[in-house]
Parts: sequence; C-alpha cells; structure tokens
Amino acid sequence: MDIQDLVRDLKTANDSKIVMLVADGLGGLPREPGGPTELEAANTPNLDAVAKAGVSGLMFPIMRGITPGSGPGHLGLFGYDPVKHLIGRGALEATGIGFKLENSDVAIRCNFCSLDADGNITDRRAGRIPTEQSAPLAVKLRDVKIPGVEVFVEPVKEHRFAVIFRGEGLGGNVEDTDPQKTGVPPLQPVAHDDASRKTAEIAKQFYARAVEILKDQEKANGVTMRGFSRKPDILTYEEVYGLRPAAIAVYPMYKGLAQLVGMTIEGQPGTLAEEIDVLEKAWGDYDFFFVHYKYTDSRGEDGDFDAKVKATEEFDSIVPRVEALGPDVLIVTGDHSTPSRLASHSWHPVPTMIKAADARRDECQTFGETEALKGELGHFDAIYLMPLALAHAGRLGKFGA
Amino acid sequence: MDIQDLVRDLKTANDSKIVMLVADGLGGLPREPGGPTELEAANTPNLDAVAKAGVSGLMFPIMRGITPGSGPGHLGLFGYDPVKHLIGRGALEATGIGFKLENSDVAIRCNFCSLDADGNITDRRAGRIPTEQSAPLAVKLRDVKIPGVEVFVEPVKEHRFAVIFRGEGLGGNVEDTDPQKTGVPPLQPVAHDDASRKTAEIAKQFYARAVEILKDQEKANGVTMRGFSRKPDILTYEEVYGLRPAAIAVYPMYKGLAQLVGMTIEGQPGTLAEEIDVLEKAWGDYDFFFVHYKYTDSRGEDGDFDAKVKATEEFDSIVPRVEALGPDVLIVTGDHSTPSRLASHSWHPVPTMIKAADARRDECQTFGETEALKGELGHFDAIYLMPLALAHAGRLGKFGA
Repeated sequence: MDIQDLVRDLKTANDSKIVMLVADGLGGLPREPGGPTELEAANTPNLDAVAKAGVSGLMFPIMRGITPGSGPGHLGLFGYDPVKHLIGRGALEATGIGFKLENSDVAIRCNFCSLDADGNITDRRAGRIPTEQSAPLAVKLRDVKIPGVEVFVEPVKEHRFAVIFRGEGLGGNVEDTDPQKTGVPPLQPVAHDDASRKTAEIAKQFYARAVEILKDQEKANGVTMRGFSRKPDILTYEEVYGLRPAAIAVYPMYKGLAQLVGMTIEGQPGTLAEEIDVLEKAWGDYDFFFVHYKYTDSRGEDGDFDAKVKATEEFDSIVPRVEALGPDVLIVTGDHSTPSRLASHSWHPVPTMIKAADARRDECQTFGETEALKGELGHFDAIYLMPLALAHAGRLGKFGA
Repeated sequence: MDIQDLVRDLKTANDSKIVMLVADGLGGLPREPGGPTELEAANTPNLDAVAKAGVSGLMFPIMRGITPGSGPGHLGLFGYDPVKHLIGRGALEATGIGFKLENSDVAIRCNFCSLDADGNITDRRAGRIPTEQSAPLAVKLRDVKIPGVEVFVEPVKEHRFAVIFRGEGLGGNVEDTDPQKTGVPPLQPVAHDDASRKTAEIAKQFYARAVEILKDQEKANGVTMRGFSRKPDILTYEEVYGLRPAAIAVYPMYKGLAQLVGMTIEGQPGTLAEEIDVLEKAWGDYDFFFVHYKYTDSRGEDGDFDAKVKATEEFDSIVPRVEALGPDVLIVTGDHSTPSRLASHSWHPVPTMIKAADARRDECQTFGETEALKGELGHFDAIYLMPLALAHAGRLGKFGA
C-alpha cells in the first residue's frame, strides 16, 4: 500500500480549489561558485510574497540523484510513483504530440529509413529527412487500412513519426524492428505473449503496406518501429483524488501527460498570459488546475542563465492574477531542475511552495533554492505533493480511529 | 525487510533506560498568520532546556499529508508500520476501553438498537440511550453463555458496547450486521473463510440469546455488530527491541494501545503528576517507559488555543522530575498534531526531541515547530523514532561487518 493507495481511501470531497503552477525545469545552479541560482537572481516579488505567507521545501521528482525526463517528472508531480508507472516510449511519443491515447491503443515510435534494392537499411534515419518532406509522407501512410484495427499515423519531426493501433486485445510486448545498424533489413516484430502476437501480426501488415506506398521515395522508402507500448494503466485524478482536474498548457507534451491521468485540457493558449486567461474562464468548472509554463526549462536547456532569469520573472508576473482567483491551496513548483550551467535536466531538488490557510509556517522570506532549505516542507519526494495539497485543502480524512 | 526487522536483528541489551514522553496532539498551528503555535506561545523553560541540550526534528506519524487516528498514531510512535499493522475497529474499541485482548480473541463493536414487533430496526442507536441505562444492559448480556467459547461483554458509552469472543480458531473476517438503515432487521453475519464461519455461527447464537434477554426493553431491545476483528498480529516490545516496557497513562485507550505491543500498564494515575509518581516508583523495574499526557490533544480538539498553551505548560512542568531520574535517552514527542485552529487531528509533523549523551548537536534553543526545522533529526517518519532511541541508548549493534 503506497501513499497513493492511502490517499485514494481517505479522500473526501469539499468545494475547495487547488492550483498547481509548474515552471518547467524551475530549479537551477549558480553561474559562479557562491553566486545566486537563476531563481535567486530573478526579481520575483510575487513568488517571494507566497514564500513569506506559505511554506517552502525542496522536492525530489523521482529520488535523490535521479534526473527525470518530462514524463516521469510530471507523473511524480501528479502523485503517481514514476518508477512504478512507466510510460512506454511509444505511448510517450504519442502523448508528446497531443494524441489522446485510449485504453485499447498500442503506440509505436517509427522512423523513416532508407533501404537499398535488396531491402537492406542504408540509412537508419532516411538522411535526417526534414519535417516538411517527412510529414506529408506520414500523412500518406494513413492510407494503410488493416481489417479489425484502426490505424493512426501522426507526423512528429524529421525522420520520426508515430503509429497507433486501436483494437481490442492488442498487447504492447513487441520488440523493436530497428536493427540498430545498416546493411541488414529491418527486423521482424517479435512478440512475447499472445495479445502481443496479434499486435506483431498487424505491425507486419502495416510494414508491408507502408513500403509499398513509399516505394518511389528516394530516401524514405522504409520504416522501423520501436517502443511498442500500451497506454499506461493508471487511475485517473477523479478516481484517486476525487478531483475534477483541468490542465492548461501551451505544449502538446504536457497536455498529453495531463490527459494520461484524466485531466481535461482547457483552452488553446499560446502564451503564459493566455494560460491565465483560460484559468480565469475555467475557474468555476474544476477544482484542480495544473498550469504549465515551459520557458524556464527551454532557457535552461539553452544554457542561457540570463534568459532563464527573465523567463522566471515572466512566471512571477502572473502570480497576482492567480492569487486574485482565491485558490484554497496554491502550489508553486517544477517538474525537475534545468540549470543553465548544465544546459540539461538535472537531479537537483526543486524549490516548492504551498500556500494555504492551514499551512504551518516557516522563516522563508523569498522563493529560492537556498531559502527553501529553511522551509517547513523539508526535503521530500514528489509523490507526497498531491497528498499535501489535498490535506491542506481539507480533502483527506483521518487514517484509522 | 523494514526498519523494524533490521532493528530486531541488531538489538543488543544493556542496562540503559529510555523514557518516551508523549504529549498527545502536541503539534499545532499559529492562531494568526505569522504568529506562534501553541507550543511556541507556551512558557516551557524545561522543554527548551531539553531542546538546547538534545537534538530536535519534525516527525510524520504516518506519512506526509496523512492525519492519523490515535491507533495508527501510537503504533507509529512505537515503531510499528501503521499502514502494515492495521487495528480492526472492534479490536480498537476493546483496546480503547482497556480490555486486554488475547491472541485467540475476536472483538466486535456493538450497538443497542430498537426493533419493532416484526424485528425490523426502528432506531439504529436505540434513541441514543444514555450510558446509565445502557451499561447495566451490557452487563446483563454477560449472562449469554455459548459452549466452547468465552464471551465478554463490556459497556462503552451510550448505545455502544463491545463483545469479545475468546476461543481457538476464530476468524475475524465477518461482515457487519448493521444494515445502515431502518425498517429492516439486522443482517445475518456473513463470513468469508472457514475460521470466520465459526465466528459468525457464535455471533448468531449471541444475537439470539441477547434479544431474548433484552425483549422487555423499550428502546434497547436489539443488537447490531460491526468491525469484527482479531487482535492485530504484532510482535511485542520485548521481541522486537529486547526492552522491558512500561506504560503510564490516564486514559484506557492509550493503556490499551500500549498493551497491544506488550507493554505492562503501571499504576492507575489520574493526573500527570500522579503519572510521574508512578514513573518514579516503577523506575527500577523496566527499561522503557511510555508516559502519555492527554490534555494537549483535548484542548486542541476543543479549539481552545489558550487552554492548549496551558496544557503544554503543565506538560513542561513535570520534565525536571523525569530528568531527575537520569534516563539515558529522553524522547519528547506527540502521536500527531492537534492544532486548536482546526479543532481536530491534523497531518502537520510533530516537533520531537531526543536528549542523550551521544546525541549530536544542533542550534535549536527552544522546543517548537519552527525551531525544530533547524534540528539535527530533520524531517522523519515515526517508525524511525524507536530505532533512534535504541541507537542513542547503545542498544543497536552494527549492521554488517
């Protein structure tokens, strides 16, 4: 019985509202030894006010030392043990382009590749064919029809596209067909159980039809398939927490991840300010709001300290609009750290705050990695964030008499 | 293998003495934002001296975000994973009135109810019959004799009483007979395994004899049975820790919980001062002492900030008498928080201290929720408190060579 099982048993309903503001890749590192992190260097009067009024801490997205990808990072934030609930590569690819997976789907990451006259691979990425050329080819593959199964083909980027088979009784336990080398043909899809043999059979048919459609292409005349996976079998926010959740995000990946746990995607915002417009409009219809801000991560990935500082300040600027809505519980956090010094995700814990009437108190005066060390929340694993949110919202009953 | 298994393997004996002072519902919340908690507002020179000399931290009774009842709260304090070791409702009821459960017992929470001439329930609580009337009726039910099993009937309060069947091979997996509505008769007890079928058979006999005895009662002429449960199957303090433990408490519930883990109940104190009298007298006979103080919780439940402050000051006042006995390890903690602002148990972590010659050091100058954030013990789960106590008492060997 893990914390989520416990919470599922103890949940109670009320009409409180919870907002989780997620600045992607929020945590950082000093540019020079002893200097401030991006968050500490940023001018964030609104976040600092939240820190003063609420409680702070440092959150491990997965476990100490582990650097998460976006998938596990968000699953952890949402309260799902990210080590137990793995999202298969195919499912993540489909999710990442905003494809709404259903329970009976098997998703597959595909590559266009180049084949010679003997059917052997000469280039595993079809010469890194540009998206303008590959996307129409992916759309062309939608002509593949297979009896008894629905086939979806979705362009991704360059040589990559996604295929989803939808049909009853399809397993996801099929090996990759990419041989990881040239001079040999794509592998046959090998299945490891009965349900997956059905999937492998369909994959063979798809392959046969695809190479027929692609036979006149110069570079992209073949296909490899990887990461066969079903939609992860996880309970929804409604089931676990009794919450009606909305997700507000600009990028498809985060909408997709939110959809996996049963959140409703609200609006089609293009900027952070538009995200808050959506939040305001949807305020009456939900009791949990996940609001995702991307650019703290993007500028961190760019390795641009000053730009990440600026992105952080943009994030800070919308806090008053969120607070004006009067959430009962306001959470500010990130899905992981993205220090611009590393230009990548990292394992460093993420500064996190909870503001609520029944939050205790601590001496944190500002929002930042060093200040959060004094915080009432201490160091904690992400899977405890949702339980804490529910507790502060009065949505958890007592355990035992 | 959890921490308790490890401790069980590593325990060693010496003649050290450990005292665990438990102020029920110790943790609190500020009355106004930014103000002190009850503990911080209280004048506690003796507890502050312990904080200065020892190490502090913040303890989660169950897990972050989870509000415990008294049962799981104390099991956690005693070092038993409270999620793994659930105490059934019937066992907790029996325990709560100080009934000493044996291994072969099945305990049941019973209600007096009102039946009409057709045997249908007209009032599930017998008009909330007052204790003065219900207790003699419970005692009357002791006349029920069932071959092959000992039957105990214990008054509780108002319409509630407890029944315990003692006999070999009785299962606790029997469904409630309370139909949760009126206009229908009590349900038959339904069992889910062979051993429990034996229990259900006995329950039917008990019911038949009980309604006979009660047939002339105006209101309380029927009985419903709920929360059938065996004594939780847990090792004793002696088995796990090699300790000879004594429990000193005023209220039956806490004596009962201590008995579940094999503590000996010492004395019959009516006040905190009398509890310490008992402690002094029993000092030579045990090496672990659980001393329970109730009124920090009671005043918190009352929602009375000032009264909780006063109760905390009473708790502080006996610390010198405890220290005068020279315990090798002194623990001060609570089983959960009961902020007067919430007038109920809460999930907030409990300020906790350990004073021992080999405690390290920290900069805590007073005993309080905010000060404990600087403490050497950090944030930790309750199941680590007993291992820490044993370690500081020199009672744990090295793990591995």
